[in-house]
Amino acid sequence: MQDFSFHNPCQIEFGRSRAAAFAAAVKKISGNVLLLYGGGSIKKNDVFDLLTAEMDKAGIAFIELSGVKPNPGIDSVREGVRLCREHGPGLVLAAGGGSVIDCAKAIAIGAEYDGDPWDFFTGKAEIHSALPVACWLTLAATGSEMNGNTVISNRETKEKLHAGSPLIIPKVSLLDPRSTCTLPPLQTAAGTADIMSHVFEQYFSAEKESYLQDRMAEAVLRTCVTWAPVAIMEPENPEARNQLMWAGTIALNGLLGCGKGGDWATHMMEHEVSAITDMTHGIGLAILTPYWMDYIFDADSQPGFAALAREVWSINETDDVEAGRKGIAALRQFFLDMDIPVRLRDAGVTEAMLPVIASQTVRRGPVGGYRSLQEADVLQILKAAW
Amino acid sequence: MQDFSFHNPCQIEFGRSRAAAFAAAVKKISGNVLLLYGGGSIKKNDVFDLLTAEMDKAGIAFIELSGVKPNPGIDSVREGVRLCREHGPGLVLAAGGGSVIDCAKAIAIGAEYDGDPWDFFTGKAEIHSALPVACWLTLAATGSEMNGNTVISNRETKEKLHAGSPLIIPKVSLLDPRSTCTLPPLQTAAGTADIMSHVFEQYFSAEKESYLQDRMAEAVLRTCVTWAPVAIMEPENPEARNQLMWAGTIALNGLLGCGKGGDWATHMMEHEVSAITDMTHGIGLAILTPYWMDYIFDADSQPGFAALAREVWSINETDDVEAGRKGIAALRQFFLDMDIPVRLRDAGVTEAMLPVIASQTVRRGPVGGYRSLQEADVLQILKAAW
Repeated sequence: MQDFSFHNPCQIEFGRSRAAAFAAAVKKISGNVLLLYGGGSIKKNDVFDLLTAEMDKAGIAFIELSGVKPNPGIDSVREGVRLCREHGPGLVLAAGGGSVIDCAKAIAIGAEYDGDPWDFFTGKAEIHSALPVACWLTLAATGSEMNGNTVISNRETKEKLHAGSPLIIPKVSLLDPRSTCTLPPLQTAAGTADIMSHVFEQYFSAEKESYLQDRMAEAVLRTCVTWAPVAIMEPENPEARNQLMWAGTIALNGLLGCGKGGDWATHMMEHEVSAITDMTHGIGLAILTPYWMDYIFDADSQPGFAALAREVWSINETDDVEAGRKGIAALRQFFLDMDIPVRLRDAGVTEAMLPVIASQTVRRGPVGGYRSLQEADVLQILKAAW
Repeated sequence: MQDFSFHNPCQIEFGRSRAAAFAAAVKKISGNVLLLYGGGSIKKNDVFDLLTAEMDKAGIAFIELSGVKPNPGIDSVREGVRLCREHGPGLVLAAGGGSVIDCAKAIAIGAEYDGDPWDFFTGKAEIHSALPVACWLTLAATGSEMNGNTVISNRETKEKLHAGSPLIIPKVSLLDPRSTCTLPPLQTAAGTADIMSHVFEQYFSAEKESYLQDRMAEAVLRTCVTWAPVAIMEPENPEARNQLMWAGTIALNGLLGCGKGGDWATHMMEHEVSAITDMTHGIGLAILTPYWMDYIFDADSQPGFAALAREVWSINETDDVEAGRKGIAALRQFFLDMDIPVRLRDAGVTEAMLPVIASQTVRRGPVGGYRSLQEADVLQILKAAW
């Protein structure tokens, strides 16, 4: 295990009974916020009413920006920045899933910067300052509610890029599992795949000594494997929704990666897939992950795959190669059972796109902290997954 | 799983390579600190030199208070408060284990209060303000490096009492596993028992639905069971020291208790045992825990014990009663193998003390959030453990 730094000051309020505490924490920072949300599902369910009622009680005024899309675009960010310049809110409040939260974070840094916010994603600008961010989370998936990452798409340039800073870790996040009870099954499945992928990206590491971290990672994976099928069969099962949402937060709040490096190649590939196709992030990850696993399966990685198989899938198999292969098969079956497409071709990717995706994935050099992948490697994985 | 709030803004710097970052974080808060340590082991090993060299480089001036004892006394707290009044440091820096850290926290609240700091422990005063606290941790055990708890002893009144507040969560803690390589085996064992007890106190809960939390708790327990014997056999094994120290922090930073209540009766009993005998906290916990488990072992608790046995001790036994009993036996054997005394009588407790300990344990009412214990229950556990 390597030396590390861990600092996550995000205040988590879990469950609707904590709504007043959430609003109080927001009010402590600012009584004047930009409220950001997506396509309006928070108005179809009761989140908008609940949230604005709590804001009213706490004395928080707000302006609204709605219509943030999945794979949120830099255009929404620019619009948010414009509103901030006009109205001067003291905090950006995201109500929704990862897309809305990531967009809020990008607005928060853009509002404190004179140039175009896309500069932060291309590396042209560094993050030195940000408006405070808060979230009301309505999807178990992203982890963005408790970390300093944002991923934004630029539909003009067909890029989907990442920026990050401790400054955009939300100050307070209300986790609202009940709001996820009305999700369509495929969105629950995609969210689960996203959570599991976040764990895999940290589980597979060049650092071999990370016993506690790995057992905790397996705890999150087992939570997904145990509770996602329940949430899909019984959408209103409160404990299934609770468990998945908390798993999503733990999966990417920094804890599982302490003292070890991660991989993240699958995320890099998926970002390019969804930059071209607008595919749901979790679906892309679910499709690519098992093929990435097949590709990197060798003498060095087999003990890790075997541990995964034994701990998460309870595969009683002493041979590492056999156990590892059965674990990957179990993961594939798990995604299949949740009706996630298993091939890129079934999710809007044409064969002609594959070389473009491959070359875009490595345009800043090889990807993957655990297994370094060149363009040819990426292309092979994409072809297998197509 | 219940709704909850989780907010732990402590900055963790893990490993000696992070010493400069630690000092920088301290300096950001204050360049004038009270440095607190124990019997001088930090001068026998290299911690004092390392720490003060880093403070020098960062431009941090300090006054010293040494001689803080295990089961730290309110007399040391009062002395620290006096020094704060005299010198006006802007932060209290604890270098040592849980005793030193707990003492630093008590000084931090005492320095901001006009009355006697013992008032915070008897409930006479509430914590409204505190000097910032930082730690350089040299023992894997307490968890105090990342939480807002302090336990202080009053040798005059033979009391050992708790106070807590988010205000005394350390702002920054340097976790120094290397400094633990020179610990005597019994101290490593006692620290491990302390960590495991912190997990048990949260694992056994009236809340039955806490899947992820319980799997994470088992991850910490398995880390102890796997790595403590290594640390005892090979005291300088760096990974064993790393794993135990990180396990100790995770065990009591609030995470494992999210969404569920705990028990804490064993801690309440042990506090009274060590208030009378000055026994090492971890030793007292190691002795009492299996007897507490025997006592509460019934139809309601057996599934929990069975899960523990299967997940932590890999006991393949389908019957819950059998599995549970074997798990408790395995825990007993584990402590025995680390040469921890198994009876209170072997650790300085006389038979005449038992009724006193029992009555003191419940003097503010029954103890135990999972199993409520009256005085007669406590006495029975103590007699079995004696």
